[in-house]
Amino acid sequence: MSALCQNKKTCLKFCTGISVYFSFVLIALHGMPGAQGVWPMPQKMSQTSEIYPLHVHRFIFQYANDSAAQPGCSVLDEAFRRYFALIFPGYSDGKAPWDSFALVVNVQSGECNGYPDENSKENYYLLVSDGQGILKAETVWGALRGLETFSQLVQQDDDEIYYINKTEIVDFPRFLFRGILLDTSRHFLPVPAIMETLDAMAYNKFNVFHWHIVDDPSFPYQSYSFPDLSDKGAYHRFTHVYTQTDVQKVIEYARLRGIRVLPEFDSPGHTLSWGNGQPDLLTPCYKGDVPSGTFGPVNPILNSTYEFMTRLLKEVSVVFPDSYIHLGGDEVSFTCWKSNPQIRAFMQQMGFGGDFSKLEAFYIENIVNITTALNKTSVLWQDVFDNREKIPNNTVLLVWRGTPPKYYSEMSRMTKAGYRVLLTAPWYLNHISYGQDWRAAYSVKPLNFTGTEEQKKLMIGGEVCMWGEYVDATNLMARLWPRASAAAERLWSDEEQTSSLSKAYDRLTDFRCRLVRRGIRAEPVYVGYCKHEYKGL
Amino acid sequence: MSALCQNKKTCLKFCTGISVYFSFVLIALHGMPGAQGVWPMPQKMSQTSEIYPLHVHRFIFQYANDSAAQPGCSVLDEAFRRYFALIFPGYSDGKAPWDSFALVVNVQSGECNGYPDENSKENYYLLVSDGQGILKAETVWGALRGLETFSQLVQQDDDEIYYINKTEIVDFPRFLFRGILLDTSRHFLPVPAIMETLDAMAYNKFNVFHWHIVDDPSFPYQSYSFPDLSDKGAYHRFTHVYTQTDVQKVIEYARLRGIRVLPEFDSPGHTLSWGNGQPDLLTPCYKGDVPSGTFGPVNPILNSTYEFMTRLLKEVSVVFPDSYIHLGGDEVSFTCWKSNPQIRAFMQQMGFGGDFSKLEAFYIENIVNITTALNKTSVLWQDVFDNREKIPNNTVLLVWRGTPPKYYSEMSRMTKAGYRVLLTAPWYLNHISYGQDWRAAYSVKPLNFTGTEEQKKLMIGGEVCMWGEYVDATNLMARLWPRASAAAERLWSDEEQTSSLSKAYDRLTDFRCRLVRRGIRAEPVYVGYCKHEYKGL
Repeated sequence: MSALCQNKKTCLKFCTGISVYFSFVLIALHGMPGAQGVWPMPQKMSQTSEIYPLHVHRFIFQYANDSAAQPGCSVLDEAFRRYFALIFPGYSDGKAPWDSFALVVNVQSGECNGYPDENSKENYYLLVSDGQGILKAETVWGALRGLETFSQLVQQDDDEIYYINKTEIVDFPRFLFRGILLDTSRHFLPVPAIMETLDAMAYNKFNVFHWHIVDDPSFPYQSYSFPDLSDKGAYHRFTHVYTQTDVQKVIEYARLRGIRVLPEFDSPGHTLSWGNGQPDLLTPCYKGDVPSGTFGPVNPILNSTYEFMTRLLKEVSVVFPDSYIHLGGDEVSFTCWKSNPQIRAFMQQMGFGGDFSKLEAFYIENIVNITTALNKTSVLWQDVFDNREKIPNNTVLLVWRGTPPKYYSEMSRMTKAGYRVLLTAPWYLNHISYGQDWRAAYSVKPLNFTGTEEQKKLMIGGEVCMWGEYVDATNLMARLWPRASAAAERLWSDEEQTSSLSKAYDRLTDFRCRLVRRGIRAEPVYVGYCKHEYKGL
Repeated sequence: MSALCQNKKTCLKFCTGISVYFSFVLIALHGMPGAQGVWPMPQKMSQTSEIYPLHVHRFIFQYANDSAAQPGCSVLDEAFRRYFALIFPGYSDGKAPWDSFALVVNVQSGECNGYPDENSKENYYLLVSDGQGILKAETVWGALRGLETFSQLVQQDDDEIYYINKTEIVDFPRFLFRGILLDTSRHFLPVPAIMETLDAMAYNKFNVFHWHIVDDPSFPYQSYSFPDLSDKGAYHRFTHVYTQTDVQKVIEYARLRGIRVLPEFDSPGHTLSWGNGQPDLLTPCYKGDVPSGTFGPVNPILNSTYEFMTRLLKEVSVVFPDSYIHLGGDEVSFTCWKSNPQIRAFMQQMGFGGDFSKLEAFYIENIVNITTALNKTSVLWQDVFDNREKIPNNTVLLVWRGTPPKYYSEMSRMTKAGYRVLLTAPWYLNHISYGQDWRAAYSVKPLNFTGTEEQKKLMIGGEVCMWGEYVDATNLMARLWPRASAAAERLWSDEEQTSSLSKAYDRLTDFRCRLVRRGIRAEPVYVGYCKHEYKGL
């Protein structure tokens, strides 16, 4: 041995140049620490202290011979490229001689050009043993989750040598819907900020990007049917819009990461910016007998409103491939409707009396029917259910109000009525407070509402909301991560296995450093340091 | 006129190519909006709607013929370069033909190689009139403040043409000490993150960087007298330390921006990390009659402690040119001292009885005396005064505890005792809450304590603290800015002129966009947008 080879670790660097098999033995003897874990925690995972070194020039992703997906599969080809660079930062590709460590990927379905959807299977099986890895999944989406897990199993020792423990994992998500809402109306988020979020979502196994794309303050979606909406409703018609190209870029970027894009066009409230580009869409408010010059929610009594919404939703249903469309329906103020004499006359005519929630129901039912006719599933905020509107049973309801036990009783009632529900109330992470508020997000028990087994099955997931009052690209990443990671584990992992906050603390601290290493501006959990600090200043 | 010249604004772009004077008239006729203001607000400022266009290729900074500072003055030469790029983003230099707009700078003192200090004059006079600018100041530090103001007066119209209003400003700071504390112990902040903070400080006219460089969790300062302190006390001896070169880089970067660097070596508490590299420095805690293996504050009864502190403070006084050294003195826990039999014996011997605050006083008095002997002024946290320690009258005390009226009565008592005070209690901006908490920081009335005129004069300023429990380079900038800007205006500007929160809101919103344009990740104040959003993803 050379003089440089006086301890085993230094030696390893040289030995691996000669024979991988020899170094296995060396490292196993040396007894290095096991992997620090995967976030979110897999359902079943066993590891031994046996480890295999990984070297950038002797590592390869491979399709199994009997895999339905083969080279040319966009989702996996791209993922192999990405994960190579994530596992070996600074490298985009290596060489692969005969003695390489191969992660062999085997997918049952060869569908590579579709979109992830509400029923997509994300389960996978991962085995790292005998100097190679095997990843099996039903779909490419499951394979993506397995690749993420594999990348997190890779550790680096003090001499910067990469290694992976002998590991066996059987994994699947607890809930099918695991989303993050970004609000691009209160502040415009440039496309790179959205893509960065999609990256971090994939690292956390989130699978739905809920794009709250328009709202009162601005309408950045550039519609080809109604270009005036963004021309007159965006903060700026050129610099603060999402063109069709932008939208397609986001959808494709998300698809390659197994993430659905759920567009929200919230109405009849939260539509002030729509009025700029679509005359007569909003209700003119009155002061006494004369219009005050201000506008309220969408005007629900005009045929033109429904003609407009039909065309707009038709466009949305074409542009966004997902089977869900979020129609909003939250926080409709009745003040303006009440002030308007035409609206009041319509109420009389329809026999609604003074109950404006019936008028709201009338509107919502109409646009839900439009959406159903487009073969899309409607998602709505809980308000619509609270106002007892008649909505098809396959509607998905998003619970956002209150704290337990209030949201539990809401979930009970909704699922009893046969609706599928999503929980977001405890994950409004735009709200901040001093200290480790990830603990509250982590401690949520999404299924602790009263109900039958059938009802529990109707609880299909949840999402983190990052409303935009105080958030834009300057602070988005640091505010979202790693706090959203707490929700990610709650939505993916087994609740009993992840009940300890102190164990989660250690793992989250490590995982946060991994995010930072990957360029995600995830803020610190508490006092400490990362081996590789954020430097992208 | 060409076909492109059908409206005045488009035309202007062409006309300015021919004659600056002609375009003056055009713009004045066109009636463009006045400047949106300067942050922090100057003491006296008058503006008219008369404006002058600025063009990157016809703009120059000049030394006045009778200025004491002339080309070669490091502080101003560098500042001219910086502000050129800040005024004309994307350009680092222009040409300057005979018809250029010149900002002529006239400084009374030619001292360019010194450091800003506690008595530095920062007043300046700025006149923009007749197509040129005049900036007068006693010192280069005042000239820096004037350059910042000038750069903020420059606006851009919808056609991206830069212009400046006719303006006259007489300006000076309300308080001489306007600081920001960064904590590089709880999380290590890479030097570029510190420099970015210094940039933003200069934009806000802050003039003291309080470097809380070491504390319990880590000792990143690489001492040449005691290299073990960081070798054994830093998070990592190579990657998480400030070398002497780093420190000099920070000090010089700060100097060029008129910012003092106030180092804090907090003791006798908050010193856990010191113990790793300096045996016998910390007090061994006892469990019953035997050492428990844990350590408490610095051991105040050993001669070796004072020998060590003398050497360390001597080094610090050489490395850091500022006349102040912050000695800490906060939150000393007596539990460990009480447990230690040698300490108890010493208490008896000194006649302190059971009053451990006397022991603390003994220690503090010793290190203050060491510091005084080094011709430095000691700064201490308020705890030292609260414990009635005998400290020289020229000590500066930092008020950090409580809310009004508690901190007012503290300031009353301190100034009555003849001490100079600094206020930080209302500006612990590491603490966050949801919403516009800049309003609380802005509403502080630093002089509203009971006291004579003489006492009020002893209130010399304040600082924003950004403690590092939850802060590192990932979230530092967004958490600090623009919330610290609220304190900046309170410390610089006239209180009566800046009493309106709603006016401040509009100005702060604009100023925040200016910070973003300059690459500072300042978070949004509320719903809205910047013409140039943050894109440095």
